[in-house]
Parts: sequence; C-alpha cells; structure tokens
Amino acid sequence: MAQQLADKRDIDFVLWEQLNGEDILKNKRYQDFTKKTCDMIISEARSLAIKELLPTLKQGDEEGVVFKNGTVTVPECFHRPFELMKKGEWSNLMVPAEMGGQGAPQGIGAAASEYFMAANWAVNCYSTMGVGTAIMIGLFGTPDQQNMYVPKLISSEWGGTMLLTEPDAGSDVGALTTTAKKNPDGTYSLSGNKIFITNGEHDLAGNIIHPVLARIENDPAGTKGISIFIVPKYLVNPDGSLGDRNDIFCTGVEEKHGIHGSATCSLSMGSKGNCVGFLLGKERQGMEIMFHMMNDARLHSGLQGLACGSAAYLLAVNYAKERIQGRDLADMANRDAKSIPIIQHPDVRRNLLRMKAYVSGMRSFYYYTALCGEKLNLLTSAEDKTPADEAFFDLLTPIIKEYMAVIGHDICIQAIQVFGGAGYTKDYLVEQYARDCKIASIYEGTSGIQAMDLLARKIGAKKGAGFGKLIQEIHSTIARAKEIETLVPLAEKLESATSRLSEITAILGQKAVSIEFKTAFAHSLPYLHITGDVIMAWMLLWRAVTASHQLNNDCKKKDLSFYNGQIKTAEFFIRTELMITLGKMAAIEEGCAAAIEIEDDSFASA
Amino acid sequence: MAQQLADKRDIDFVLWEQLNGEDILKNKRYQDFTKKTCDMIISEARSLAIKELLPTLKQGDEEGVVFKNGTVTVPECFHRPFELMKKGEWSNLMVPAEMGGQGAPQGIGAAASEYFMAANWAVNCYSTMGVGTAIMIGLFGTPDQQNMYVPKLISSEWGGTMLLTEPDAGSDVGALTTTAKKNPDGTYSLSGNKIFITNGEHDLAGNIIHPVLARIENDPAGTKGISIFIVPKYLVNPDGSLGDRNDIFCTGVEEKHGIHGSATCSLSMGSKGNCVGFLLGKERQGMEIMFHMMNDARLHSGLQGLACGSAAYLLAVNYAKERIQGRDLADMANRDAKSIPIIQHPDVRRNLLRMKAYVSGMRSFYYYTALCGEKLNLLTSAEDKTPADEAFFDLLTPIIKEYMAVIGHDICIQAIQVFGGAGYTKDYLVEQYARDCKIASIYEGTSGIQAMDLLARKIGAKKGAGFGKLIQEIHSTIARAKEIETLVPLAEKLESATSRLSEITAILGQKAVSIEFKTAFAHSLPYLHITGDVIMAWMLLWRAVTASHQLNNDCKKKDLSFYNGQIKTAEFFIRTELMITLGKMAAIEEGCAAAIEIEDDSFASA
Repeated sequence: MAQQLADKRDIDFVLWEQLNGEDILKNKRYQDFTKKTCDMIISEARSLAIKELLPTLKQGDEEGVVFKNGTVTVPECFHRPFELMKKGEWSNLMVPAEMGGQGAPQGIGAAASEYFMAANWAVNCYSTMGVGTAIMIGLFGTPDQQNMYVPKLISSEWGGTMLLTEPDAGSDVGALTTTAKKNPDGTYSLSGNKIFITNGEHDLAGNIIHPVLARIENDPAGTKGISIFIVPKYLVNPDGSLGDRNDIFCTGVEEKHGIHGSATCSLSMGSKGNCVGFLLGKERQGMEIMFHMMNDARLHSGLQGLACGSAAYLLAVNYAKERIQGRDLADMANRDAKSIPIIQHPDVRRNLLRMKAYVSGMRSFYYYTALCGEKLNLLTSAEDKTPADEAFFDLLTPIIKEYMAVIGHDICIQAIQVFGGAGYTKDYLVEQYARDCKIASIYEGTSGIQAMDLLARKIGAKKGAGFGKLIQEIHSTIARAKEIETLVPLAEKLESATSRLSEITAILGQKAVSIEFKTAFAHSLPYLHITGDVIMAWMLLWRAVTASHQLNNDCKKKDLSFYNGQIKTAEFFIRTELMITLGKMAAIEEGCAAAIEIEDDSFASA
Repeated sequence: MAQQLADKRDIDFVLWEQLNGEDILKNKRYQDFTKKTCDMIISEARSLAIKELLPTLKQGDEEGVVFKNGTVTVPECFHRPFELMKKGEWSNLMVPAEMGGQGAPQGIGAAASEYFMAANWAVNCYSTMGVGTAIMIGLFGTPDQQNMYVPKLISSEWGGTMLLTEPDAGSDVGALTTTAKKNPDGTYSLSGNKIFITNGEHDLAGNIIHPVLARIENDPAGTKGISIFIVPKYLVNPDGSLGDRNDIFCTGVEEKHGIHGSATCSLSMGSKGNCVGFLLGKERQGMEIMFHMMNDARLHSGLQGLACGSAAYLLAVNYAKERIQGRDLADMANRDAKSIPIIQHPDVRRNLLRMKAYVSGMRSFYYYTALCGEKLNLLTSAEDKTPADEAFFDLLTPIIKEYMAVIGHDICIQAIQVFGGAGYTKDYLVEQYARDCKIASIYEGTSGIQAMDLLARKIGAKKGAGFGKLIQEIHSTIARAKEIETLVPLAEKLESATSRLSEITAILGQKAVSIEFKTAFAHSLPYLHITGDVIMAWMLLWRAVTASHQLNNDCKKKDLSFYNGQIKTAEFFIRTELMITLGKMAAIEEGCAAAIEIEDDSFASA
C-alpha cells in the first residue's frame, strides 16, 4: 500500500538529496539540529498526523462548527488532536528561538505542516494560526505587548486571527470602514464589522487575540490610512490573567463548500460601545505589518494545495492498485482473460502520472522557496542580501499561492475521477479534499489578485532582477541535465520553453505599461500559470538529475523504482504538459483583446 | 440583471438563427408545431423551472434523501414541483406520439431540459427517468408489456431506473453476477445486488419499474451472456392495478459530494427468494437494449454539464455586475477614484468571457447533435441513412458526454472564483452547482470509458466516415466565414487547427492498432478533448457567421450587443483557447510513453 498523506521517501529525497538540506544545518542557528533529529521530528509529525488528526477529518466535515448564542463549538473530536498538537508544541516548531519557539529549519517545518494540513487542515489551523499573530507582535509590538501575548500565542494556549475582510472590503482592503477612536489612556475604541474571519471564535483556546485593520478617525482614505490594533477577546491583566470580556462578538459562522470544521466567523466590534484595541506598531503602519503575516499566509495557501493534492493522489494510487475492473487492453478479444487492477489501464496511468508530476513538482517548488526565504533570513546584515535574492523570493510567493492552490484542487478532482462512482461518495476522502482545498485559491488574495501582484509588482521589481534570477537558476539545472546523456532531450525542451517564457515576459511586461495595459492584465492569470508550469518542469528535471546521479552511485536496490520514477515523471511532464504550456504561451503572445473590448451587455441578455 | 439558468435569447439564437430550426418543423411529424408554439413551450418550461423547481434546489441539497426501514423519502419540497412536472406532462415532451408522448422536436426538448436540469437536476430526473425505461420497453417489449408499463412511465405516474452497476461490475458491465433462473411460467427469478442506482427507491411514484441486467443460468460469461429483465417494485395485475410487492429492496443510499436530493440506492434482489423478472426482448439481448437507453443517458450527462455551467455562469455575470470592489486599473494611482463593479476588472472579464465561450459553444454543439440525431430518426427507411450520418452522430456522443461534463464542472468552479469568498459559502448556488455537476463525468461511463469508446470504436467506424463528415462540416462553416472579411483571420486559424486535428487523428488512429496501442490509449482522453475544443471553435465561428449576417441585415437595435458579443466570443476562443489546443495536439503527437513505461512501484513508496 502506498503511504498516507505524503510520501515520506519523497520528502526525504527533496530535503536531503535534491536540496542538500544538510548544508543549511551547518548554520550556527541550527546547531541543535542534525539530519537525524530532523528526521525524527518529521517522523513524529507524520505519526501524530496519521494517528490522531486524520481520524477526525471526516467527522469534522460531517459535524461542522456550531454557532449558538454568540459562541462557536468545534467538533468534539477536534479537542484531543488539538491538545496533542499543543502538548507537542508543534505550532512553534519554526518560530525563531528568540521569540520562544523551537527555531527548526524551514524544510522540517514544511514537512511537518504538509502532514498536519493533509491530515486535518482545520485542526492544524486552530493550532498554528496564533503564530502568525505572535510574529506580528514579536516584530512590531512593544516589549510589554510581546511579553503579554507572544508566549501564549506560540504555545497555542491562546488563538490568533487576522481581521481584514469586511462586507464591502475584500480584495480592496483600502475600502474598509472599521474605525478606531483614540482614548485619553492611549487605547483605542474600535467599531465595525468583519467577515470571513478564520477561527474568529471557537472553544479550543482560553483567549483569542485579534489583529484588526481599522482606520483612525480623520486618517486618509485607502490603504495608507490603515492602522492595525490588537483586540483581545478577553482583556489581559498586567499579571497575565484574563480580565474583562472585550466588546468583540461573533455574529455568525459561514456555511461553506468545505473545511466545515473550521470556524469562518462574522465579528462585530463595538456594538456596546466598548471594544478596546491597542495600537500595534505606529499609526497608519497597518498594511506593512499585515503583509508580514499575509506573505506567510499566501505561502501556506500554496502548501494547502500541495497537502490536499498529495493526500488525494496517494488515495488514488492505492485505490487504483486494489480496484480490480476490466481486462488488459491486450486481452480485449479474450473473454477468459482475468480482470486487472485499474492502474493497468492506460488512461488511469496517465492520470496518476500527471497527478504525481504535479505533486512532486509542487513539493520541490515549495521546499525550494522556503529554503530561499530561509537563506534570506539567515543573512544577518541588510548588505548581504542582494536585491535579486529578495526580488526572487517575492516573485515566487504569488506563484506558490495561486498555482499550487489551483493545481492542488485539480488533483483532488482527478483523484475523484480515478475512484469513479466511489469517489463521488463520502465513503472515501477524495471528495472532501476537493471541497476543502477549493478555499486555497480564494482566501489570502484570489487568483486574480495574485496574477496582478505578479505582473504589476513582482516581475519588474528591482529592474527585473528576481525574474532574471529565476531564468538563471533554471539554466543552471539545464546545464547539469545536459551532462547526463539521457536527459539531454528533456533539458533542451525545457531550455526552449524557458526562452519562450522570457520572450512572453518581455512582451507582456511592456504591454502592461503601454496603452494596452488592460489587455495585458487580461492575460495576467494565464501568465502566472505558464510561469508555474515552467517551474514545475524545472523542478522535475532537477529531480531527474538528482535521481540519475543516485542511480549511477550504486544506490540501494529498494530505491531503484523511486529514482527511475523521477526520470519517467520528468519525461512525462516535459513531453506532455510542457508542450501544452507552449500553446498557452502562444495564446498570451497572440494577445487577444476581446475580453476588454466586449461590451458589458454582451455577456448575457437582460 | 442577466437571466436565470439559461439565456433565452441565446437559446432562440441557436434554435432559429444558427440551426434554422424552422426547417425541421416542415416535416409532417411536426405538423402540430409552429415556431410560435415551440416558443410557448420553451417559455412555459422556463417559467416552471424558475418559479417552481429552482426555489427547491438549495433545500433539496440541505435535506437530502432519508433512508429508513427500506424506504427512501425525498425532500418534502420536491413533491410540489414533481407534481407540476407530471401535471404538465413535461416528462414525455419528446416521447414519440406513437408511444403516447407529445412528439416535440429535439431542439425544443433540449431547451426545456436545459431549464429543468439547471433549476433542479434531481427533481427533473425523478420526473423524466421513467421515459428511458419506457422507450426500451416501447422498442423491445411485447404488446402486453408495452400496454402495461409505457403509459404510466411516460406520464411520470411510475418511475423508471437502470440496474446495471454492481460492487464489482462498474465500467466492466460484463463482470456482473446477478443471476436469473427461468421459472416454468416463463418468468424469471432474479438474485443479486446492484449499487449506485439513481432513483432506485423513493416516495414520488406509485411504482418503480426496474430494467435489470442479469445473466441467465448457464449463459456465457462477459457481456454477450447478459439479458435484460423488467423487475417492477410492485407486480402489476392484468387490469393495471398494483399487485404484490416484489422481492427487490433498497438496502441503503449513498452519501455523496452533490445531488443530495437524488436517491442513489443499493438494491437487493431475491433476498427472500422471490424476485420476479420478465424478460425484455430476447435472451442475451441485454447489452443491445441497454445501449439504447445508455446513449441517450450519455447525451443527457453532457447536457447536465451545460445546464449547470450555464446557470453558474449567469450567476457569476450578475454578481460581477453588482459587486463593487476596487478601482479601475486606469485609476490605480488615484485614491479618490470611485470603486467599480468587478466585471470591469480585466481578469474577471477574461474569466467571464471564457465561461461564456464554453457555455455558448456547448449549447450550439448539443442542439446541433440533437438535430443530427433527429434527422436520422426522421428518415423512414434504413436506405436513406448514410453510413457517414450514423457514424457522425455516434462519434459525437462520447464527446458530448465527456467534454461537456468536464467543461461544465470547470465553469462552475470558475464561477466560484468570480464570487470570491462569497462563492465558497452556501449563500450562493455556485458551489452547489459545482458539486452537483461533478457526477456528470462519472456516471453513464467515466471520462476514460468515453475516451476509449471514441478512439477504439468511433473514429474508425464505417471506414472513418463519421470523422470525415465532421471535418467536412467544419470546412463548410469555414468557407462561409471566409466570405465575411472580418472573420477571415478566425476562419484561417480554425482551418489550420482542423487540419492539425486530422493529422493527429491519423497518427493516433494508426498507433492504436500498432504495437504501441497502449501508448495511444494513454493519449485517448486528451485526444477527445482536442476534438471537443475544435468543435467549440467551429460552433463559435458558426455563431459569428450567423451574427454577422444578422448585423448586416438591419437587425433590431436591442440585438446589437448580442450579435457583437457572438463575434467577440468567437474571437476570444479562437485566439486564446484554440492556441492552447494546438499545444495539446503537439503533446499527443509527441506521443510520450512514460505513463505506460513507468513501473507500478514508482507511483508511490510503500
């Protein structure tokens, strides 16, 4: 039977073979971590995920959260895995030691998160979301604020949130109407309504610390007038004990397509005229502080796509190996031929290999990006950070967020297809993974927002240094692939696709600052996706290079299938999916403006 | 506000302008139908769908069906629309007059079905599924059987089903184990278990007539040994009154991803040793008879994709016009610029136009195919039917089934995206349409089965005459488009794509009978999809030709946006989506065999 949730052998391959994870451990920050301890951590996370979180996934979907009299009750079965996550301090695995966390390397955190997210995204989110709040306070709070909130947030004793969206301010945060009025004691009185607040209210934590975006009276309209406030559910006394209930209340929870176990709340502040908030950072610094959390949240949305896709893929592999149905295509004329597992059917194999290619490519892409971010963080002085490195990491963020969210969902849908009628039932988890995963391309900035971010801000940033580095990094893998005879044809195909990507980027980048800028942005999402496709091909070729070296290196017999599989997967992707990418590139180059030119009334008759 | 469910103006355009629907009305079979009466029928169906079926859609999803003590209760709110459908005799609208139906033209039936399916697929299915059973009995039953069952099935007084799938016989029908033993009185005693039976048990009909595939004792294994039996839930007395309860019982209903209001049942026959069945047709004629129903069911699965996609698209258009969020891209630097409806954002427009293109293309494709089938049926003697015409219709069936099911689902997913966070909630119907629609690519033969049918049976049938006719028909539209100056560039692009389709068909067709046949079948589903893509481009170019003529023809001012929209939609599809199709074609031509060559153990580690 294939493994559950995520292929541990594959995670090890990415961490230690493809990305040479031992290099980063040499940094003195990681002096307490060896490859062996890292491996133990991942194995423990995996075991906890499979044994404790996964068994509650379906029940959480069925029961959902219950909203009654202003309180939100999570599925009863969530309490035990939540407590185990808390006891094991899994939420602060990657929190820097100076904030009281365990300071584990990013790759180890990514692996643990993959398992937890795949096992039960909602439980993982209840356990870890406070960390985002803690990091904002850790970076921008006063020492008092840090002492008061950070330790309890990173230990999961208290929960955290992010109060951004309002009924008329979603993608356009600048339109928010929540107000803050300064009080004589330096605190602020908040008033407003927020919606779609993940974990906005629930019964797992003793307190919930809400970072709230709001506009101080008389501050300018738009994003530049936004400040951020700490609004605790229960005010905290100087000694750390809980004080009065603050005037922030849950007014409802959303009924959703998926993640039923996750409380998506509407919150009302100041309905009794007494919602106390504490300024975080400076006045009007709200967007800057919020984006520290948001960039991480966007990477995590991408990881959610990988986690759901990986889990659904492995379920599909298992089913395809066990489900006996139909005869081999070679035996169609022979009525006496025995029935075979459906993995033997060419179309099922194609579908599975396509899913595998994306799961593998996304895993490498995510771990690689996490490593890039980690290297930037490890540089102690600002001077050491090259503009290209920073721009490169910034460039990858919207691609991770959008591409992995959408592809992850598509893999779940394909997994349903492998299961056939059984996949449409709730007897298997694949249909739930599809529903749960769909949120990832919506929250923390929809597909369109990511595409606009990429084209408007990231491609041209630092004179295109980030994109330049992307091309350079791809070429370095191509060069290594060309040293291996069997990989030369694949390397050459990736080389021409990469060169096409550069051409299309130049064309679209120029168009984006021309009179035809609207047409350019009508192609921005397909553009993000071709960039993601080329990155998938790059990652898979890189895997094939690594695998080829291991095969030439007297690898263990039990690893033969694994390494050979890497080469076949790269071949599949580059010779099928990447051919389609070339078509998508041609479509962008063609630059049809019909979407801009069509009249509004032409979309549908009144 | 855009219309609900389906754009009536667009349906009229397809029926009367694109397909010249008045021509077929000249046939004496349709002497009771004029354009005006047809229009009244469609308007009535639309009104019933919007006013009575649609309001029960969400409630049906929430309540689902209830299985208790062997009985199945449908959502209470379904009873009223079901009775109205019955009273209006909507189920037999297209049933030939000689079987007691209203004998309406196919296009009218398609329009009515679009509305009913989009408004509430489950209610429509309870109302109409007996017709499939009736037609089988009408064509293959004895006069007594016809008299006994057909009138009550086509009036929706009794329900019908199709008992095909068993736990170990899904795609591979030939593996079924249900047995039939002949009794001295000529009846048969059936024994076995069936699963995934749509409408297998429910409380809307007085009786349910089950056609059951089973193997008579000692008949050969595989499909050639299968017979079909009529197994009524209640045996019917010679005077038409209900007799004893037959030994066929519901043992459970599936919990599913969507269509919660539709009863998907497990049925047990002969658990008391007393399940009486009546042979339909001859012994071992089961597959032939079943396929009469199955081909219609496959077309309807495609129509379900269109219906859900169309409804979700129109909801998205409405939301995009009403939802105010963000500034115009031209005003990004101007903080004082007012917020705009999201339909003004380039990426939202692209997404909507892409959805519109597919909805429009699919509608034309379906109505066109229905018309082709109708023309075949109207030919009275077998000699009049050319092999090409029959092969052409047969060729289109798996494409309708698979392509429209998958694209319809994709459109629902894109509609969620247009709604953003709101689309993920149950406040809007788009997420339900996505869940409901997903079944269409699974039942009545999965994607893989349709792809195999197309490549193995349909492309080469009658010496490729069906495919030849497809190319010829496309060329006739291209020729007409070339007479209109503004359409020449689009016509040329479709011409080269069509020529590429012919090349790829030849390559794949040859490979399918070569030693590399498994590789060919690993590309069969992408092949079906490129064929569908080219058909979409064809249909949209055809629409543009028709619209161009109307625009040159002093059309009404209120139609200007509609016709201009047809031309923009064709331009969008041919200059973006069809460019991607060329990439998909290149991928098939490349013919990568990795999916066949990869070892089973390489898919995932044990």
